[in-house]
Formats: sequence, structure tokens, C-alpha cells
Amino acid sequence: MRETDLIGLIQSLNAAQAPGLVKGIGDDCAILRPKAGEDILVTTDFLLEDVHFLRATHSAADCGWKALARGLSDIAAMGGTPQYAFVSLALAPWSDARWVRGFYTGMQRLAQRHGVVVAGGDLTRSDKVLCDIVVLGAVRRGQALCRSGARPGDRLYVTGLLGGSALGLETQHGAAWKRHLRPEPRVEAGRALAARFKATACMDLSDGLALDLHRLCRESGCRAELNGTLPVFPGSSIQQALAGGEDYELLFAAPADRPIPHSIAGLPITEIGHCSKGSPGRIRFDGNPLPAAGWDPFSKPQRSS
Amino acid sequence: MRETDLIGLIQSLNAAQAPGLVKGIGDDCAILRPKAGEDILVTTDFLLEDVHFLRATHSAADCGWKALARGLSDIAAMGGTPQYAFVSLALAPWSDARWVRGFYTGMQRLAQRHGVVVAGGDLTRSDKVLCDIVVLGAVRRGQALCRSGARPGDRLYVTGLLGGSALGLETQHGAAWKRHLRPEPRVEAGRALAARFKATACMDLSDGLALDLHRLCRESGCRAELNGTLPVFPGSSIQQALAGGEDYELLFAAPADRPIPHSIAGLPITEIGHCSKGSPGRIRFDGNPLPAAGWDPFSKPQRSS
Repeated sequence: MRETDLIGLIQSLNAAQAPGLVKGIGDDCAILRPKAGEDILVTTDFLLEDVHFLRATHSAADCGWKALARGLSDIAAMGGTPQYAFVSLALAPWSDARWVRGFYTGMQRLAQRHGVVVAGGDLTRSDKVLCDIVVLGAVRRGQALCRSGARPGDRLYVTGLLGGSALGLETQHGAAWKRHLRPEPRVEAGRALAARFKATACMDLSDGLALDLHRLCRESGCRAELNGTLPVFPGSSIQQALAGGEDYELLFAAPADRPIPHSIAGLPITEIGHCSKGSPGRIRFDGNPLPAAGWDPFSKPQRSS
Repeated sequence: MRETDLIGLIQSLNAAQAPGLVKGIGDDCAILRPKAGEDILVTTDFLLEDVHFLRATHSAADCGWKALARGLSDIAAMGGTPQYAFVSLALAPWSDARWVRGFYTGMQRLAQRHGVVVAGGDLTRSDKVLCDIVVLGAVRRGQALCRSGARPGDRLYVTGLLGGSALGLETQHGAAWKRHLRPEPRVEAGRALAARFKATACMDLSDGLALDLHRLCRESGCRAELNGTLPVFPGSSIQQALAGGEDYELLFAAPADRPIPHSIAGLPITEIGHCSKGSPGRIRFDGNPLPAAGWDPFSKPQRSS
């Protein structure tokens, strides 16, 4: 299979055109035409064989889905609308045309659900399958949600249930395993948090609540008190809900006097605590200090997920 | 070294702020504010250990320079102004903090020269060093140069000298080797070709003139006649000038009645032939058919460059 054949295959899977896409796959660059009054969001995420997925347990379609889901989740965390994906893919000797087709089909399924167009990328080969995905999104000018906007007194919330992905990684079956393989980026909820509910800060939970909340608080210059009630995924432990990564739920803050509903777009919202004055990044859980533990690729043995 | 320390190191190297950059490194996404009347260009390129560089021959600074140069060259090929880079980097066990510092220092040197700000990325680890770089640029609305605009009768030109990078890869010394390690993206020339000289088509020579010209002609629906005179890098063979990759010069087309100067921004411009009617993508060189040979990662043994 030559590079031109591969590009042809990818183009055939990507017939979709977006109004702002002047030129997609096939030139030195893609050309995008932004709308007036919008800011552009950019995020990039690796999905690497033997670091983020295993050939033995993740199908090609799982890999394609997950690679894109990670990027969409970052756009959701800023309250934006994802628009374009750029896929850099290095193929290994074992990943044949069938695998490539499966990968793009899995990605395409998630992309279509969110109206995202694959607009470019790079192709090469390597010893292992390597994917880096870039997602561009749009948000009304000045309305993007950052990690740094939480203030003492703000209440803290999460979407959905926590710990499911870590449980799935452990047991490799059932709803938790599906959760791990095919995470659902919370795009609609993120958009509502920015546009309707005016959250003060938001981020996605990719590395575990304890570590990610620590980061949000450090950026916001406050500390956090968790009230001890967490929306735990059925069967997951509190530890998995606190420090398991890859839940891809949203963590957000909002002023105490702002009414936040119990669900947004069918997704449950749980109040888990509040921000307070004090050492930036410190967290107490049910009255006790909570270490900022979670997924850090540089401080742990490699995860084989 | 933890992920947060690495991000701190990277942020410290990137104090530069650009007017359109609302938020750079440190949140789930970067936030960009595009100018009215501009299109946005996006390109992504891998730079992988043992595929695109060797630890033994490429310094950390060479890798950082080259990773960015590949992306800037794509923006140059569209006639745009590069603005932001996003760097996804997977570190190997051998690449320590000193290597990371060298990598970003080399990248920063080239970035500053072109006013480019590193605005985000991803960090993880792997068996080998893996880099994927995304560059965003701007171009006046509708003015981007594509591969598809050449017409029969247009003259064909290249910037600079060809074959230097292939010679450098072979000899590993002198100006040619420097050319291979630290390619110079032709940003100023590309901008002038779009804005002043109204080239009809343009692309950068990353995989060799024969293969890249074949692609340009295929996209433009024409064939090409090369007149046999090529601006060959001193010491390089004709074969290296025709099929050696990574010269990162610009190949462009312009109507025969449009005056193209002999140099742009100090860079020599050479007329190498013209476009004609016929089977799209076919090329004749000095009267003989020229096969579309060049760097294709899927049809050749891996390059150790």
C-alpha cells in the first residue's frame, strides 16, 4: 500500500464538507475560514501503542474513536464546538489496510455525531502505531471556559459518573470496559456551561479528579473542599473515582448563587464541594487532605490501557 | 522529572506572546483570536526517531529546528505567515531534561526568526522520541496558494538549489549536511509569491522534485515538461536534485506573461520548465519520461536520516 493509496482511502471516508473548510486533505495545508466573532480553540493529543492502547485489547475502531474522543473532550472542557480534526498517523508493520479502514471508521462514527470533519494530517510508518490528533473548535469570542476562573465560594460540580474507566481497565468487561474503550466527550454539556450557565472554570477529567482538581485550583489560586459525596460509577471504588484517569467527564465551578440543574442534556450533574481561600491547589476530601494523585506519564510505570 | 516540571520548563522558554493568542500553554486548549479577512492554514508533521532522525547524528537542537522547519515550510508553500506551533512530544528513556532543553532551544531559535509562538502541545513518554508538530498560519482571505491552480502554458520555477539535503545525508559533512540538519523554510518567498507575484500553484519540495511535481501536476490536471536545467546544489548529482527529499525549496507555477524575478528576498529563482496539456501528472525531463520517484514511507525501506 502506497502513501497515495492510503490518502485516497482516507479521503473516500471523508466526503463530508464543512462550510468553513475552504480546502481539506490533499494540499500542503488545510485552509479554514473562521466566522466573525468567534475564537478558535486548538488541542493536540497523542494516542500511542503500548502507552495509551494495546493491540491485543483495543480494536482499530476503538483506537480511532478514542483518539478523537480525547481531543473532543478538550474542546468540550472549554465550552466550544469541535469543527475539524487533523490526524497524524504512523503505521506499524502489523497495521494493514483493514486496520487503517477500521481506525478511520471508528473515528468517523464519533466525528459525524459531533459534526466534525477530518481536514488533514500526516502519514508515515514506524515500529508501533502512533497517532497524534489535533482538534480545532470554535467558541463565541471571550466565552471560552478556562481552568483559572474559579473563586473562593464557588461550588464545584462534575458531570456523569467517575471511576468507570479505571474499573474497566481492571476488569476488561461490561459497561466499565466499554466506558474505557469508547469514552463520550461531553460536548453538549460543555457548550451549555459556557453559554447558558456561565461556569467560572472548567476542565475535563483525563488524569483523575484529585490531580485534575489540584490543577484547576492551582490555576485559579484557591483550594478546594470536597464534601465526600462522589458520583461513583457502579462497581468502582472511591479510589478509582478519585484517582482513576480517562473518565472524560467535566469538572467545573460556578458561583454559589447560580442555579445549576441536576442534569444537562440528559447527563447528571453532581455538586461535589466548593472552592475556598488558602494554599492554591490544596484539596480536602471529607475533612482530610487529599494528595494530588493520578495519571502522570513521567512519574509512573507506563500504563498499558 | 514530572510532567508539571516539564511544562514549566517549556513555558519558561516561551515567554513570547502574540497579539492574537488569548491563551497559550496550560489549559485544555489554546485560544486564538483570528483577524478579520484572514484564512487560517493548518499543517501537521511527524518527526520520529529512527524514521526522520537518528539519535547518533542529530542533536537535540537539530531535532527541534527540523520539526518546526517542516511545518513552517508547509505554511510557506501556501503563501502564508506562520503564527503558532503546537508541539506533541513523547520522550524516550534516553532523552533527559538536557535533551528537552536543547530541543526547545533549537525550535525556539527558528520560531523567533519567523515570529512564531509555541502555543501548546502534549507531553508523554514512549520507547523512542516522537514529535508531531502542528503549525497554524494566516493568509489574506482567498489568497492561499494551492497545488491545483497550474494551467497548461504556465511556467514552472523553483527557489534555491536542489539535492543538497540528499547529498548531506550521504556525506554527513559540510554545507550539504547542515542543509539536511537545519533546512530553511522559504516563508518570505512564499508570501511574496502569493501577495505580489500571484503564482497559480505552489508546494514545498519535501519528497523530491520528481514526485512532488507529479503531485502538483496531477492536482492541476496537466503535465510538465522540464527543460533539463536544474539549480543543483554544489556537489549534488542530478538524481539527488530530482529525487532527493527534504530540500524544502518551493516549486511554483506562474503564467508565462507574468514577470518573475531572478531572486526573491535574496533567494535565487530558476525557471525549470512549463506545464502542458496531457495526462495529468506525467513529466518529461529533457525530452524523456521522468518517473515519479522520491520519498514515500510506504514503498521504501525506512530512511535513517
